[in-house]
Amino acid sequence: MRPHSIRRLVILTEGQFGVHHAKTAIGVIRYGRDDVVALLDSTIAGRNVSEWLGDRYDVPVVATLDEAIALGADALLIGIAPTGGKLPEEWRAVIVHALEARLDVLSGLHTFLGDDPEFASAAALSGAEIVDYRRVPDRHQTAVGRPHRPGAKVILTVGSDCAIGKMTVALELERAAREAGLSGVFVPTGQTGMMIAGWGISVDREISDFLAGTCEWLVEQAEEMGDWIFVEGQGSIDHPAYSPVTFGLIHGTTPHAMVLVHKVGLEEHDWDHLPGITHPIKPLPELVALHETIAGMVAPSRVIAVALNTSDVTDDDARRVIRETEAETGLPTDDPVRFGPARLFGAIRAAFESEGTA
Amino acid sequence: MRPHSIRRLVILTEGQFGVHHAKTAIGVIRYGRDDVVALLDSTIAGRNVSEWLGDRYDVPVVATLDEAIALGADALLIGIAPTGGKLPEEWRAVIVHALEARLDVLSGLHTFLGDDPEFASAAALSGAEIVDYRRVPDRHQTAVGRPHRPGAKVILTVGSDCAIGKMTVALELERAAREAGLSGVFVPTGQTGMMIAGWGISVDREISDFLAGTCEWLVEQAEEMGDWIFVEGQGSIDHPAYSPVTFGLIHGTTPHAMVLVHKVGLEEHDWDHLPGITHPIKPLPELVALHETIAGMVAPSRVIAVALNTSDVTDDDARRVIRETEAETGLPTDDPVRFGPARLFGAIRAAFESEGTA
Repeated sequence: MRPHSIRRLVILTEGQFGVHHAKTAIGVIRYGRDDVVALLDSTIAGRNVSEWLGDRYDVPVVATLDEAIALGADALLIGIAPTGGKLPEEWRAVIVHALEARLDVLSGLHTFLGDDPEFASAAALSGAEIVDYRRVPDRHQTAVGRPHRPGAKVILTVGSDCAIGKMTVALELERAAREAGLSGVFVPTGQTGMMIAGWGISVDREISDFLAGTCEWLVEQAEEMGDWIFVEGQGSIDHPAYSPVTFGLIHGTTPHAMVLVHKVGLEEHDWDHLPGITHPIKPLPELVALHETIAGMVAPSRVIAVALNTSDVTDDDARRVIRETEAETGLPTDDPVRFGPARLFGAIRAAFESEGTA
Repeated sequence: MRPHSIRRLVILTEGQFGVHHAKTAIGVIRYGRDDVVALLDSTIAGRNVSEWLGDRYDVPVVATLDEAIALGADALLIGIAPTGGKLPEEWRAVIVHALEARLDVLSGLHTFLGDDPEFASAAALSGAEIVDYRRVPDRHQTAVGRPHRPGAKVILTVGSDCAIGKMTVALELERAAREAGLSGVFVPTGQTGMMIAGWGISVDREISDFLAGTCEWLVEQAEEMGDWIFVEGQGSIDHPAYSPVTFGLIHGTTPHAMVLVHKVGLEEHDWDHLPGITHPIKPLPELVALHETIAGMVAPSRVIAVALNTSDVTDDDARRVIRETEAETGLPTDDPVRFGPARLFGAIRAAFESEGTA
């Protein structure tokens, strides 16, 4: 990635915003440092992101790229992440049009846009940049067992499933640390986190042999940036497709502590699997124990808090489930998006102070 | 890989045969379907492989490639696997010389020889082939939760550490199955296994997001080849650098059963780590329980036997440790290399028959 000032983004979400798998768009709108001037989605054109995300997010939805350019867009961000990461063929025209109009194109797909001859030549002609966030550094290093810097507190978000808010919880907790006057660092481990924070590595793209080494290296970099380090988790330990990435993060970052993220109401793993197959979400106390067992196989770690995503229930139900989860797990529990991250971060800080974990 | 008849190999092991990390050379000599006409290793030139591996392996060691060519070599196999997989610079000349002499060059390194301009042009000029075994198919599929074919019995070798014999145990057990008149399949998951069996995928090279999907696909292919399927394991669940690959194999192959491999006398993980760091090998009963816990997070599985590598102890000590391990774990235990695989395979077969596991 070239260094760049604040971009003015149009986010392509064609047909997917407000439904499944628009988490990249929502993450960038909510937490990104770039301005979002429009959503490009002909199926909901004329509406506004505030209808879904609330009044703080006044982003118009447009039907064509030219409307977004008229609004000042200087970069097109591919805002969805289909399973497998491939580029739907129907988006090709809009990407070429963006590059010809000298908009940078930002993508987190597994299929690298910069390797596509049509896109590469359009970019070369106009001077636009193609950023493939999933392209990992050609580093090829295995983990070396690096100890953490004294004073650093490394906290990994883990979860009962994919796409339930592990990145969001890490971002909220880092914000709470900064608001408490501490040096907080968010460690992006996926393409959306990178789009938001402007650094990091999409570790699910790393060669398996170097996954733990790359996770270790991300933490090494973060320890130069601050003391309270919140690593974005990926997948879940019992997800039949994505668990190796989760294990690599746990064994590679050797976190002092973990925060377990769960979405209230979720019963099954999110997965494009064969029909008739079910993989129920495990009870939270079992997940706490399993995470501590797995981490402890390389370096001891504890789950010190539960972060609930209560977006599908009412305020009253959210408060009730939080109380019930605290009782069930014996751990401080909250929804840091709905009720703010200060209380949960306070509990995490207290746990570190009382135990001298780091 | 092009289809090919039996090759006549010279194996480059310069300075490493008989010491650490020559496991590729030894595996190919012991189990490969190709002929090995010479070892290329100037530090032990004039000696014979039989001095290390016994009289069955009459392979001369030569100091120069030309001597190997005089012995009829038609392919140069890179016979060691340095950590990180990079090509030592001093081997460049011998590889170019081999390609110019129209020897195929076979490599399991992470650094692809075929991508090197000097090697590629030498190969193109002479018509020699460069085979990079670690180059994975451009498939990019996540796991779909495919059920096993009825009648298939999928058995994964797992281990207390890297480089202790998981591939060898799988090869020996597959041989025992065939010798018992059953249809046995060895599933290669690493470059040496591929060199031996002529198919497979080096899963540690796979993109992390597709690791479980690739392991699932390997088993799907194996289930078309036979009933008794022995999957070569990689790494270990508590190895600080390689555990993600091990987890991907467990969750991706969803084995009916696992065979735990351990090297007698081993106390520490094999690892190029920072000085002062130690990672002791866990007790076998704990490893049995951990493997069953981890597998059970996606699909239930049991460790049904222990395979000991007793190569560092006497016959008497080997027999004693096997008895002690059976008592300690309650599992059938043997060294299938030292004492033959028939007894251990018999115990595995009995376990399947008594339980109706598959």
